[in-house]
Amino acid sequence: MVTIDPERVLGDLYHLRSIGTYETGVHRPTLSPEDMQARHWLADRLRDLGYEATIDGIANVVGLSPGGGRKLLAGSHLESQNHAGWLDGALGVIYALEAARAVAEAPDMQGTAVDVIAFADEEGHFGSFMGSRSYVGELDDGEIDTAVDATRGTPMRTMLDGAGLSGHGRLEIPAGRHAAFLEAHIEQGDWLETNHLKAGIVTSIVAIWLYKITFEGVQNHAGTTRMAIRKDAGVALTRLAQAIEARFPEIAGPRSVWTTGRITLEPGATSIIPGRAEMHFQLRDAEPETLERLENELVRLVAEANGSGPCDVTLETVSKGTPAVMAAEIQDAFEQAAETHAPGRHTRMPSGASHDAQVMRPHLPTGMLFVPSIGGVSHHWSENTSDEDIVTGARIYASAAATLLKT
Amino acid sequence: MVTIDPERVLGDLYHLRSIGTYETGVHRPTLSPEDMQARHWLADRLRDLGYEATIDGIANVVGLSPGGGRKLLAGSHLESQNHAGWLDGALGVIYALEAARAVAEAPDMQGTAVDVIAFADEEGHFGSFMGSRSYVGELDDGEIDTAVDATRGTPMRTMLDGAGLSGHGRLEIPAGRHAAFLEAHIEQGDWLETNHLKAGIVTSIVAIWLYKITFEGVQNHAGTTRMAIRKDAGVALTRLAQAIEARFPEIAGPRSVWTTGRITLEPGATSIIPGRAEMHFQLRDAEPETLERLENELVRLVAEANGSGPCDVTLETVSKGTPAVMAAEIQDAFEQAAETHAPGRHTRMPSGASHDAQVMRPHLPTGMLFVPSIGGVSHHWSENTSDEDIVTGARIYASAAATLLKT
Repeated sequence: MVTIDPERVLGDLYHLRSIGTYETGVHRPTLSPEDMQARHWLADRLRDLGYEATIDGIANVVGLSPGGGRKLLAGSHLESQNHAGWLDGALGVIYALEAARAVAEAPDMQGTAVDVIAFADEEGHFGSFMGSRSYVGELDDGEIDTAVDATRGTPMRTMLDGAGLSGHGRLEIPAGRHAAFLEAHIEQGDWLETNHLKAGIVTSIVAIWLYKITFEGVQNHAGTTRMAIRKDAGVALTRLAQAIEARFPEIAGPRSVWTTGRITLEPGATSIIPGRAEMHFQLRDAEPETLERLENELVRLVAEANGSGPCDVTLETVSKGTPAVMAAEIQDAFEQAAETHAPGRHTRMPSGASHDAQVMRPHLPTGMLFVPSIGGVSHHWSENTSDEDIVTGARIYASAAATLLKT
Repeated sequence: MVTIDPERVLGDLYHLRSIGTYETGVHRPTLSPEDMQARHWLADRLRDLGYEATIDGIANVVGLSPGGGRKLLAGSHLESQNHAGWLDGALGVIYALEAARAVAEAPDMQGTAVDVIAFADEEGHFGSFMGSRSYVGELDDGEIDTAVDATRGTPMRTMLDGAGLSGHGRLEIPAGRHAAFLEAHIEQGDWLETNHLKAGIVTSIVAIWLYKITFEGVQNHAGTTRMAIRKDAGVALTRLAQAIEARFPEIAGPRSVWTTGRITLEPGATSIIPGRAEMHFQLRDAEPETLERLENELVRLVAEANGSGPCDVTLETVSKGTPAVMAAEIQDAFEQAAETHAPGRHTRMPSGASHDAQVMRPHLPTGMLFVPSIGGVSHHWSENTSDEDIVTGARIYASAAATLLKT
């Protein structure tokens, strides 16, 4: 049995919030001085615990327990989105650190340990899951060479140099060392809060299918071109967008989501009929069959738009991921722990957001735990979770870790 | 009776096409070396005719006949849109020049004359109708001081200085000198061509009513936010855009046009639900009652969108112009001349595009003549009109000018 220290968990999270504070959240982009300060702070806490702690060549912080025996790997990320919340990433790291400490302190857990990791750049300032992909051996140096901060334009190599990490090797997951990988995270949605629940046990991380839809019409003068002869690419775009909005709810799964986040009209001038338009359209679901069904309908709606004219519509697949199913035994361990610490107030649910856990899943049995997000707010500095819910989550997390270590 | 010289008309237009040639069109932005070369060439041609020719402090070229008697003012502009057509502007200037020459050469037209003007910047590189507004006394120096080339960012003062026009006074329309203002232009649409017509007699230059419609939703994560609770500003925008497309054809006038040329989603990222969206919506019609009817429907559709939610929609009027009705006696003169030179192949029609004529109209009885545009192409270097149609148009124009001078 393990016992966490609520004051220590909250104290650590408050301390991280003091590094790069922005309003009630933080601004701690990957490899910024604030991000590196947080990583060094974590490495020091791991060393306090007697761990061998390393900040490797991509800024992953890896804390390995010195002893032998059954071990878990646990963690999340420390950098934030720009001007974002204090718990996104940090919560999962501190839960892992607290579980490591609770296991180390528990007399009946001797001979087991929780290794701790804080991945770099889960938030994608420089690329896609570069830290976790590096740790599982799926990141080439060439990708680091060309990576540039999407907001600030600084090359990743320049930032790594500034962080004192040039020439440092990149650590990879030690073969056979870990029985499982655990990650905790705020939900980033309102499902738990709306249903008065304290814990979400992730069944699967949804797949993202991303499309670019292009509309080719004829650019012309917005005053002299009669309506009857126009080939307005913008009108074609809004028509397809509304056809999707009308049809998808009829065939979607209960938790399917779809989003048009980006629309471009060319040339984008008030007095010129758009000759070309483009929309980025994204589907997410945990069920491959649901994604297939929605994609088939999208293909049909695009064909229908082409059939009725007057613009040419092209559907291009940008990427199609696979849902990452979480390990059954870890879901069970989380559920059992949740029933102990929040009886009747937990649920199994998919994760609509992406996480490092999906990169780890092919390499280790992997599980995720969600805690409630107030108002479902995410990627904004006002993101928050009550102290009480944070502590309950830490208890569930550490208990499940102990169960998995005892298996 | 006046007789034009077809070779002279076409020769002059071909010469102007050789100044700033781009593909089969021209690139002759306002105050560029090419624009100034064209203006000096025109001033020389006017001097050949014995006119007093001036390039004034905003680059308007003004050619005044030395004699007394009844006079018309006639012209258009010489600069082009970027990489655009050879006739947009130039045609109206050369028609005016040829009418001036034909009147000067006609024994029975002695004691009358056509003054010629080539306005600066009708194409709006630096502002809105700065040349014609200067000529009618409606342009302050302050507006020139702050004007900047929209494409190149160069201040207008810098360009005027480079053109040798710094310190030159700006000419204004001499009170009581002119009986009317005439402008010819390519149609920029396909109405004449589609109906096998040779001349369009402009009844009115349409008014442009411009709106900005803003949609306020809630920005959130595109993976974790359930469809049921989203307030997606982009979805609200495409819904209203399609409601307009569905409803407007039922209540529009026969030549009403409406255009959404610009759409912005914020923040415009693939994985973020747009929290804010904006569209620029433009209406054009020659009938104030039709514009009112369409605007009332727009207000109703916006109210309906607000009523059904979930986003807040705000309609803001950016500008509301007034249709510029062309003088009845000039329409009659163009129609009579068209019946002579292209019997049965002319029509009265509104102008969907804006022209310097709308700036002149409050100051002089004003009329406009259109010639066919091949394929209705405008503001593109492939814009064109057949030589035959150019010559027919010049005959109609000069005949009408003669009629108006004899009145």
